Amino acid sequence: MAATAQIGVTGLAVMGRNLARNFARHGYTVALHNRTPSRTHALIEEFGHEGNFVATERPEEFVAALERPRRLMIMVKAGDPTDTVIEEFAPLLEPGDMIIDGGNAHFADTRRRERALRERGVHFVGTGVSGGEEGALHGPSIMPGGSAESYASLGPLLEAISAKVDGEPCCTHIGPDGAGHFVKMVHNGIEYADMQLIGEAYDLLRQVGGYHPPQIAEIFRRWNTGRLDSYLIEITAEVLAHTDAATGAPFVDVVQDRAEQKGTGRWTVQIALDLGVPVSAIAQAVFARSSSGHTDLRAAYRDLPGAGARPLSAHEAETFTAHVEQALYASKIIAYDQGWKMIMDGSAEYDWDIDPGAVAAIWRGGCIIRAAFLDRIRAAYAADPGLVSLLSDREFGQEIGGAQQSWREVVATAARHGIPVPAFSTALAYYDSLRAERLPAALTQAQRDFFGAHTYRRTDREGSFHTRWAEHDRPEVSA
Amino acid sequence: MAATAQIGVTGLAVMGRNLARNFARHGYTVALHNRTPSRTHALIEEFGHEGNFVATERPEEFVAALERPRRLMIMVKAGDPTDTVIEEFAPLLEPGDMIIDGGNAHFADTRRRERALRERGVHFVGTGVSGGEEGALHGPSIMPGGSAESYASLGPLLEAISAKVDGEPCCTHIGPDGAGHFVKMVHNGIEYADMQLIGEAYDLLRQVGGYHPPQIAEIFRRWNTGRLDSYLIEITAEVLAHTDAATGAPFVDVVQDRAEQKGTGRWTVQIALDLGVPVSAIAQAVFARSSSGHTDLRAAYRDLPGAGARPLSAHEAETFTAHVEQALYASKIIAYDQGWKMIMDGSAEYDWDIDPGAVAAIWRGGCIIRAAFLDRIRAAYAADPGLVSLLSDREFGQEIGGAQQSWREVVATAARHGIPVPAFSTALAYYDSLRAERLPAALTQAQRDFFGAHTYRRTDREGSFHTRWAEHDRPEVSA
Repeated sequence: MAATAQIGVTGLAVMGRNLARNFARHGYTVALHNRTPSRTHALIEEFGHEGNFVATERPEEFVAALERPRRLMIMVKAGDPTDTVIEEFAPLLEPGDMIIDGGNAHFADTRRRERALRERGVHFVGTGVSGGEEGALHGPSIMPGGSAESYASLGPLLEAISAKVDGEPCCTHIGPDGAGHFVKMVHNGIEYADMQLIGEAYDLLRQVGGYHPPQIAEIFRRWNTGRLDSYLIEITAEVLAHTDAATGAPFVDVVQDRAEQKGTGRWTVQIALDLGVPVSAIAQAVFARSSSGHTDLRAAYRDLPGAGARPLSAHEAETFTAHVEQALYASKIIAYDQGWKMIMDGSAEYDWDIDPGAVAAIWRGGCIIRAAFLDRIRAAYAADPGLVSLLSDREFGQEIGGAQQSWREVVATAARHGIPVPAFSTALAYYDSLRAERLPAALTQAQRDFFGAHTYRRTDREGSFHTRWAEHDRPEVSA
Repeated sequence: MAATAQIGVTGLAVMGRNLARNFARHGYTVALHNRTPSRTHALIEEFGHEGNFVATERPEEFVAALERPRRLMIMVKAGDPTDTVIEEFAPLLEPGDMIIDGGNAHFADTRRRERALRERGVHFVGTGVSGGEEGALHGPSIMPGGSAESYASLGPLLEAISAKVDGEPCCTHIGPDGAGHFVKMVHNGIEYADMQLIGEAYDLLRQVGGYHPPQIAEIFRRWNTGRLDSYLIEITAEVLAHTDAATGAPFVDVVQDRAEQKGTGRWTVQIALDLGVPVSAIAQAVFARSSSGHTDLRAAYRDLPGAGARPLSAHEAETFTAHVEQALYASKIIAYDQGWKMIMDGSAEYDWDIDPGAVAAIWRGGCIIRAAFLDRIRAAYAADPGLVSLLSDREFGQEIGGAQQSWREVVATAARHGIPVPAFSTALAYYDSLRAERLPAALTQAQRDFFGAHTYRRTDREGSFHTRWAEHDRPEVSA
């Protein structure tokens, strides 16, 4: 077999298949491999005319079909299957070759695999790929980690097949080892939060505002022409405008209200807890999905009393809608700020040296959270690469300042009307916590000293102190 | 060396020392061991008159001093030091002997250690011990896991040294392997939430109500005579009433407002995410502690605009105080309900068969969250052992129903005044989410189907469905 392929893809389920086609459509010769060869042949049969494919069956054949240094992309289920495939192919590779994992791997697994393969001289490139099936085919947002050397060889191919915004590819070298999969994980965490915020906005417009789904679709369409312009707002309008053919009811009303999840949102929160990053709004989104599925709890709570507030008048509803747009935008800034803080703290923890503005740039297209908003984040980091928070950016600061009274109004109204807004209210609490001159954390720390002698620091002098609470005059000692 | 000791304690830092003294004070002969023997001798010198101690230096001596089956308690730092000590002593033990780990181990480590020692015939008893130094000496709440056989031998000793409430020991066999450490972890998670809720109540009374710390101490003292009666409310009043000797200022004002944490709260949330239990209020407490320590973020947010609401009049403040009591109580029910749900789901996941009422019973005394309230939970499970939620209990349901309007008022007021109440508002959102007839999770699931073909379920018929969103008439297919 002649080594003619610039890239090989093994694992030809829908994501692998579409990425392979995308490479071929961009003029690359693509070697194909799948555990069961029928998928390989089916791809050639259906899409062979789209470009140059090399069908292979045995692993040795697959590897032999690749130009050196070999670029071998694995698109299999994250977890053990990934290790199995690595073990199958790694012995056939030579120093300088690359294995690219485009699945949703946990970044800690990617770090482990990268380390193990590096010892054999093989580059392991854990790569986030966002955009679903359609993105994979027409241009995803791509987040490759791994060595700079591997990116020099592989980057041009990935950039070629990625989405483009203003002519720039939605692909950049994120950083060493697990950086790419880490950033993809945070992307998904932000996506959870964004979707939950949109859900809360919809719920408020419907239950407090009294609007019907087609009317709410119109509101979202209008919002999509402004600063909220994004793929998620766009598809929200499409979903809400859709009528169920079977029943004639609004489509959203025939869908069971149980949101599923695949794990990256959960990972985001778990890793954030390890890093000490308070991604509270993202966490609420994860919890909202899981609580929606707890039918036993929902049955137990169902008959508990609610607020019984009166619905709004048509005029009030209009004003309220404007407030909701402000609340949604402000909460969105907070959710993204939490995500970026996590990226920066992860980068510091693992020495990845991630460019936060570059991450915003490659999320402008191809991925689920693509939005005009990302260009604003990119610009904010361009103006000040050392930005601690998006809110240190003058424009974002001004916007949230302009939105905050409406945001408060919405959270207050939701509480009074009995509509759950876990992400809106948590985002507001995050804003007010970090803004606070003094937090009740002082009381918490004093309590900890009281019952556990955990000591405290003072505002007026250096050092650790412990108060002997059990003694009558409560003497303070240096600890 | 004669085998005269009923129990041995190795690791004589403050917790180990106080537990050893507690055993001795209850008439048990206690073998002592510490890596550096000076601690052993210091204990004997200072407290030798309290009971029968056997000082030992070498591990072989320590083990030889124990009656069979041997009960060897290790009180060392959780993590690697625990494994080191186990490896040191396990080879010296015989089938039927017990190693009791009274540290704050992660329950997964306890499961691993129990399995490994079981193969050698040695019982490993991972035991939660709550109550801090004082509790260890005067009567902690004790949560032993491990085999039923080990509890038959060890239980009487642990029950003897535990706190007592109405004559009942605050110690019970929680369940196999890691059950004890799991339950202790959740205890700490609940403790985080309880402390955060108290902190928010204090902050509201101070910043919205306009009260000074000594006045708030009085309010907490009054609350402590009612349904909120608990150790944490009691010490809150003590802390708030305390004046700093050096400055004459309220003590709470000289303490830096950065709350620290040791990890069990974080673990609770991480494990809850794995189990799919939405412990949202507990998570907020963990995030609140970590955000209080992010000085860089706090500096970035500091100058952002707040609400600028006017303070309350004296009369309004009085009414508001009553609302805050209701909100605190309602939120507390939710936090505990989340904790109990986690215990029950953990029990089901790991086949522990935990008795939820018994957990409430042993937390009534000795531990940090001890409270009259726990007796209510015990009673609720006594009335219905299959309780899905505390709110299925008629009395709790009625109480939260009576509190909910005040709770809404408090969350709304906090939002309007710019006071962060992440735990209050999250608890309310949890209540309103689970109560909801329909959740916007339907929209979330529809969006997932739109961008990722993740499918959805319908309300009107069985099966999984996918809508072909890209096609004009959007046909639905069974998936």
